[in-house]
Amino acid sequence: MQANILTVGDEIVSGHVVDTNAAYLAGRISELGIGVRRMSSVGDDVAEICGEIRSALEDADLVFITGGLGPTGDDVTKQAVARAVGRKMVIDRDLHARLAERWKGRKPVSPRVVEALALVPEGAATMGNPVGAAVGLDLEHEGRRLFVLPGVPREMKSIFEGAIVRLLKDLPKDEVSSTRIIKTTGIRESQIESDLAPVAGDLPVSLGYLPRPEGVDLRLTAVGADPGVVAGRLEEATQQILPLLGAYAFSAAGENLNLVVGNALLERGITLAVAESCTGGLIGHLLTQVAGISACLDRVIVSYSNRAKIESLAVDGDLIEARGAVSREVAEAMAEGVKRLAGSDLGLSTTGIAGPSGATKTKPVGLVYVGLAHAEGCVVSEHVFAGSREIVKLKAAVHALDMIRIHLAGRGV
Amino acid sequence: MQANILTVGDEIVSGHVVDTNAAYLAGRISELGIGVRRMSSVGDDVAEICGEIRSALEDADLVFITGGLGPTGDDVTKQAVARAVGRKMVIDRDLHARLAERWKGRKPVSPRVVEALALVPEGAATMGNPVGAAVGLDLEHEGRRLFVLPGVPREMKSIFEGAIVRLLKDLPKDEVSSTRIIKTTGIRESQIESDLAPVAGDLPVSLGYLPRPEGVDLRLTAVGADPGVVAGRLEEATQQILPLLGAYAFSAAGENLNLVVGNALLERGITLAVAESCTGGLIGHLLTQVAGISACLDRVIVSYSNRAKIESLAVDGDLIEARGAVSREVAEAMAEGVKRLAGSDLGLSTTGIAGPSGATKTKPVGLVYVGLAHAEGCVVSEHVFAGSREIVKLKAAVHALDMIRIHLAGRGV
Repeated sequence: MQANILTVGDEIVSGHVVDTNAAYLAGRISELGIGVRRMSSVGDDVAEICGEIRSALEDADLVFITGGLGPTGDDVTKQAVARAVGRKMVIDRDLHARLAERWKGRKPVSPRVVEALALVPEGAATMGNPVGAAVGLDLEHEGRRLFVLPGVPREMKSIFEGAIVRLLKDLPKDEVSSTRIIKTTGIRESQIESDLAPVAGDLPVSLGYLPRPEGVDLRLTAVGADPGVVAGRLEEATQQILPLLGAYAFSAAGENLNLVVGNALLERGITLAVAESCTGGLIGHLLTQVAGISACLDRVIVSYSNRAKIESLAVDGDLIEARGAVSREVAEAMAEGVKRLAGSDLGLSTTGIAGPSGATKTKPVGLVYVGLAHAEGCVVSEHVFAGSREIVKLKAAVHALDMIRIHLAGRGV
Repeated sequence: MQANILTVGDEIVSGHVVDTNAAYLAGRISELGIGVRRMSSVGDDVAEICGEIRSALEDADLVFITGGLGPTGDDVTKQAVARAVGRKMVIDRDLHARLAERWKGRKPVSPRVVEALALVPEGAATMGNPVGAAVGLDLEHEGRRLFVLPGVPREMKSIFEGAIVRLLKDLPKDEVSSTRIIKTTGIRESQIESDLAPVAGDLPVSLGYLPRPEGVDLRLTAVGADPGVVAGRLEEATQQILPLLGAYAFSAAGENLNLVVGNALLERGITLAVAESCTGGLIGHLLTQVAGISACLDRVIVSYSNRAKIESLAVDGDLIEARGAVSREVAEAMAEGVKRLAGSDLGLSTTGIAGPSGATKTKPVGLVYVGLAHAEGCVVSEHVFAGSREIVKLKAAVHALDMIRIHLAGRGV
């Protein structure tokens, strides 16, 4: 069983937004064992959308469409769907009544808006939108099935998760496929490939590699007769792969490093304080994406100026003078300083040159020191990261989080 | 003149990554006055890619393809291109020599890898890759032109900017189109629509709206005979629209708020210190994306615990006890505290409940206080932001940055 995904909107084909809806749908549909054959995007034009729907219907059992369901003039997806499947547009009376009810007693909405929202291709079933006014549509056409969803990501997800997931689970399938992501950091794609060479030919999955600034993701895809078989293959392959990757692999469930590190701290009740310079708050931001982290994270001091390093972290001004703010010694003093001030178990620090300016003869853009102070001392690592300011910040923050992970793993605590 | 964009990779159709290449290319191609008709994505399968290239060649003058140019087994895009345009694959001798030279004296690369990278569809011109091994390709086919680029974003951008942009600029065009983004925050889409109603019918551009968590983007698109005419129309429309949006509009050039605020601080030489609680470092991260901001940003204290608020920001412990950490009074004490400690012109603070837990009877998830201390006092605003932990953090950070912008605008400094 295969699916095509079509996202609609001038904002997509003009490059104004990155289309996250298609990736979300592709990920969820794949997880449910249905392969995604093609994703495409066109602007808000009835003829273009209609042509694309027809071609999507040609080679997939399921077609998912998002965007262009609102009441304004540029929302023409429903008209395009009706034209593509040869139906007329009709007012859905039930829907019209529900929409009228929705706005009762609130700011009046023009009858034209209510009517536009209640217009659907004849015979389409509607799927309620818990967080917005534009409903989803579910149509059958010549043995194919179309799902039409709003473009606002929150609304799209709400209808997909609330109404479509269980439909997809129940569909009879000849074959299902599923994917698992093993996340690594600190190792190159080519090294992973050669580390896995001894088993690669015998794995019951296919492998894909995705290098990102924060590390290489390894994607395992299994195909089989049913979800149980597929899950077994993914698990078997994971068990063969993980020992070969050693400590470079930090999640076999596609979790990001901030989540892995945050949860490890939470589970073990280890407290942390952070002193950032070149990462500028990014480590704090990443850790505080983890719900409940306040139990472990006491404070983050972004000491951007030398004065702040001295005043907020008790770093010795003479040391900064002697070694420079971007130095092994200052990284250590920052990590030790923030740990002592916060009274935490661990102190993490970064100092470096994010660029594009700030380089000196001996210190290039991308030079970063990361310090981790713990009960028995302090480790400092030195790096030269390539890339833009943004990428240098990201790589430094990821490496800093990874030092915590490796420290915890090394202790076996 | 129209373009189609095709991105290739199992990682895209499995939803493993969000496809940022297509958006980047679409944005840049649009800026150069060429309309993007359709974007599509398929997995690493020769037949699928070939089919998609053929259909892309049917209805566009230019076709841009990214991904699948590497030397490994799943990189099959070049083969698919050759098949789609009916050419055989040949070794590009010059390229082969350059690649061999590239690795000379470094870690030896297998001859198979060099050969795979030097194989191109016959007659394709190559475009050098300054930051990687896979070159770009430039082919003509039946009056259409294909550009084939690597999937690694940094490499794709490097070749596009280095070799393709000037080709696109020089292409003769019957008509060009261009887009401008006016960015707003603090105002709803429907309010913008009604504020613009008096002029909307007479504008020499078409309008699109894109609501995001951080505010609504207004997209202006102009079409005309040449770049000068189009630029004039965009400028004329901008001059009509901006006065109607007032202070809600913060950029008429599509710049993000952190850049606008960071640059305003830099230009005016105003110093800032930040005390974050619920935003967890995100404000610091956003501000430090701006190159050179160290001249204005002294420090960011993420005082996640009450103890950190007391110790690092000199907030009165009794005040926290009496009013709660999430309160107007504590927001003010944090902003004043960090300003005083850093000796900066401005002190910015956030304290709130990012969720999903932490709500009390009187304080819901999403409740956030933002404080801005300045020379004449301190303003504190109260909000209840809807959405996930991530969204609450983002909305709070954006609002905090916007308070600086409005403060600076109000002073006319």
